[in-house]
Amino acid sequence: MSGEQNKIPQATAKRLPLYYRFLNNLHHQGKQRVSSKELSEAVKVDSATIRRDFSYFGALGKKGYGYNVEYLLGFFRKTLDQDEVTKVALIGVGNLGTAFLHYNFMKNNNTKIELAFDADPKKVGTDIGGVPIYHIDQLEEKLGSASVAILTVPSSEAQGIAERLVESGIVGVLNFTPARITVPERIRVHHIDLAIELQALVYFIKHYPLEGEHEDHNGFKE
Amino acid sequence: MSGEQNKIPQATAKRLPLYYRFLNNLHHQGKQRVSSKELSEAVKVDSATIRRDFSYFGALGKKGYGYNVEYLLGFFRKTLDQDEVTKVALIGVGNLGTAFLHYNFMKNNNTKIELAFDADPKKVGTDIGGVPIYHIDQLEEKLGSASVAILTVPSSEAQGIAERLVESGIVGVLNFTPARITVPERIRVHHIDLAIELQALVYFIKHYPLEGEHEDHNGFKE
Repeated sequence: MSGEQNKIPQATAKRLPLYYRFLNNLHHQGKQRVSSKELSEAVKVDSATIRRDFSYFGALGKKGYGYNVEYLLGFFRKTLDQDEVTKVALIGVGNLGTAFLHYNFMKNNNTKIELAFDADPKKVGTDIGGVPIYHIDQLEEKLGSASVAILTVPSSEAQGIAERLVESGIVGVLNFTPARITVPERIRVHHIDLAIELQALVYFIKHYPLEGEHEDHNGFKE
Repeated sequence: MSGEQNKIPQATAKRLPLYYRFLNNLHHQGKQRVSSKELSEAVKVDSATIRRDFSYFGALGKKGYGYNVEYLLGFFRKTLDQDEVTKVALIGVGNLGTAFLHYNFMKNNNTKIELAFDADPKKVGTDIGGVPIYHIDQLEEKLGSASVAILTVPSSEAQGIAERLVESGIVGVLNFTPARITVPERIRVHHIDLAIELQALVYFIKHYPLEGEHEDHNGFKE
């Protein structure tokens, strides 16, 4: 948490895990260098943005050579604290929650869903993908050292559960419910609303047609 | 698609569906006006950003009065083409796909999942939430006038399916697979990667602590 790192723009920071994953893939394939153009095609971020992002870390590609994969990978591993695993709790084992549990978060990653909670007695006591499911009444008792929660409960439950999570020491919430939750300012909440993502895509298709535009519109600009 | 609308920054455009939904809720509650502060608390976007966003539409709140809900709602309904429903196809009825089908996308919304596809014979011929599930082999035959696809297939299938979708006239893809797909430039792809969202949240918690910061850090800045 040096002052240096705090200077990275948040839009750049958000792309780090993406860069990291693809560099790791390249490394596994035995590649030693990569151009910003190749990286651009793999991660679907325009190469000017990649060059600018990388310049914040002092990683300057050499013309005709590109970037050194191992160097970059080492840098990202350190920056993303790949050696320190963050324990995650998942609240709400419905379809979306189950999808998360089946998803292999440990692959190239520093997060692990350690435990899950649900109110359904048929689910409590079972496990999915090795993750035990406890009753939601046991939230405070079982949460342990988990610091991040994924919220996949019905909207009507979101605020109440969020308050209990904060009381129990959770500092970050990935909120997949359509409900906007109110928590103390120190708690970081990222909100992913599937209906709004779909509606935004439709709006962009209608109002920002891509024909003839540069490839970098294939994603949001910061 | 006037030149006027094209001047709205993409970050602002992405917030339109969110504003629309909450204004619609206020309208249903019989509220006639709303301050940027109230709206800010409901949608978790800081009020300075809301005021700037709204200024792009020429909606200037009056001091001590705020914004007229009905006027704003009418504006957003028109801007978001709420009267024109976009037909959506969902490809891959696993846990994530099933979660989507249970989700009520038509609520305050202009998108509708009309049909779904899967390779599992046990799912083909059934329906979920009224959406019929066809065999993936029937993709070209059944797709009809759907213009947007939600991709919730295994990663290994993503590229092949994406190519078939593009051939069949799909112009936008909401890609939930970890695979980055390569499609012609005119096709708009928004990519939501659950593992990367989680990793980004963890990175932000570690490197951008919120304590003492202003509330508007409770989400990404553009």
